[in-house]
Amino acid sequence: MADTSKPVIGIIGGTGDLGSGLARAWANAGYAVVIGSRSAEKAADAAAQLGAGVRGLTNVGAAEAADIVILAVPFSNHAASIEEIRGAVQGKILVDAAVPLVPPKVSRVQLPEEGSAAQIAQDLLGEGVRVVSAFHNVGAAKLHKGGRADCDVLVFSDDKDARDQVITLAGAVANRGVGGGSLANSAAAEALTSVLIWINRQYKVLGAGIAITGLEDAAQA
Amino acid sequence: MADTSKPVIGIIGGTGDLGSGLARAWANAGYAVVIGSRSAEKAADAAAQLGAGVRGLTNVGAAEAADIVILAVPFSNHAASIEEIRGAVQGKILVDAAVPLVPPKVSRVQLPEEGSAAQIAQDLLGEGVRVVSAFHNVGAAKLHKGGRADCDVLVFSDDKDARDQVITLAGAVANRGVGGGSLANSAAAEALTSVLIWINRQYKVLGAGIAITGLEDAAQA
Repeated sequence: MADTSKPVIGIIGGTGDLGSGLARAWANAGYAVVIGSRSAEKAADAAAQLGAGVRGLTNVGAAEAADIVILAVPFSNHAASIEEIRGAVQGKILVDAAVPLVPPKVSRVQLPEEGSAAQIAQDLLGEGVRVVSAFHNVGAAKLHKGGRADCDVLVFSDDKDARDQVITLAGAVANRGVGGGSLANSAAAEALTSVLIWINRQYKVLGAGIAITGLEDAAQA
Repeated sequence: MADTSKPVIGIIGGTGDLGSGLARAWANAGYAVVIGSRSAEKAADAAAQLGAGVRGLTNVGAAEAADIVILAVPFSNHAASIEEIRGAVQGKILVDAAVPLVPPKVSRVQLPEEGSAAQIAQDLLGEGVRVVSAFHNVGAAKLHKGGRADCDVLVFSDDKDARDQVITLAGAVANRGVGGGSLANSAAAEALTSVLIWINRQYKVLGAGIAITGLEDAAQA
């Protein structure tokens, strides 16, 4: 059963590899999760497969039902998905996990003119939405197996409270959420994704990620 | 005694915090190290303090004496330092450790128009120099205490042999060198530096760094 003291999480692109992996992990951690897709039927089928009380709706339906909305779509659908849910997410937290990969050279860093996908999202959504950027470098394989990703999650936002809420969410799907500063700093995590894709290929691994070292010395961490 | 089978390392900006820390670590690992400074006298004094056979010369002298040249200068001196040593580094490997911080907001990612400091270096130096980008996120404190930095070092280059040589150098000053792809991918590590500065302040630590997770699963790492 979902814990009603926790925020309801809606996942746009929730039938995708990352979206469905995140849905499974948060549902297992006691969150009410609604996955969205362009097709309500496809979303309902995927939700039934996930179990754990996960519901499936259209993307707009999932955004409307959620307190915190996760955007887990390919960059090619990024702007269109934001336009679709813009009305439904006003006043909420939108967590952008999109990475601005430019096929075919996805292992080469090619950041957009705006600086980052997260900045594009904030520009499109306006000041009524608190945009957070996170989950770019989470490998979904371990999530699908019922575990947590073996990495830290860098969390960026210009809003401290929104950043802190997503740091908490990150702790349920990976080793730890770590604040990384303002939304502009999302460029670092987005760029790292291409580096990690390169590392996966070069070192013949499936889910290279990052961890932040040196935090064990923190007076308060 | 330096191992003459190892490349001679020249460090431009070798009297600075990072440069002198790297000099100490490589000298302790058996490399012949020459530190450069704008003042030969200042370089000689710093070299005497480091001991372990480290020599001190002008920046041009250090570049001329070295097989592999490390550029460890503030971004404000980056272009001028490159112009100064351009002739002396032709045919060699130039390792750029410069981070394009924009004071006063050094904890905010602000990448240059060219994409990265490393790309600026390659553009200024021309095709006769193999530019590698590395050591952006190495905290110098542990180096000065005689140890290695508790982090991985991402190493970027368009030249595989040069990248591999610097991955080896990285293993002497930090936990591990990890290839990160082409020189363009340096943007990720350069951007990360601002994130780590933000983390140091926010979490009240001195030397946050990064580690790459998931490589333990590698068939060959």
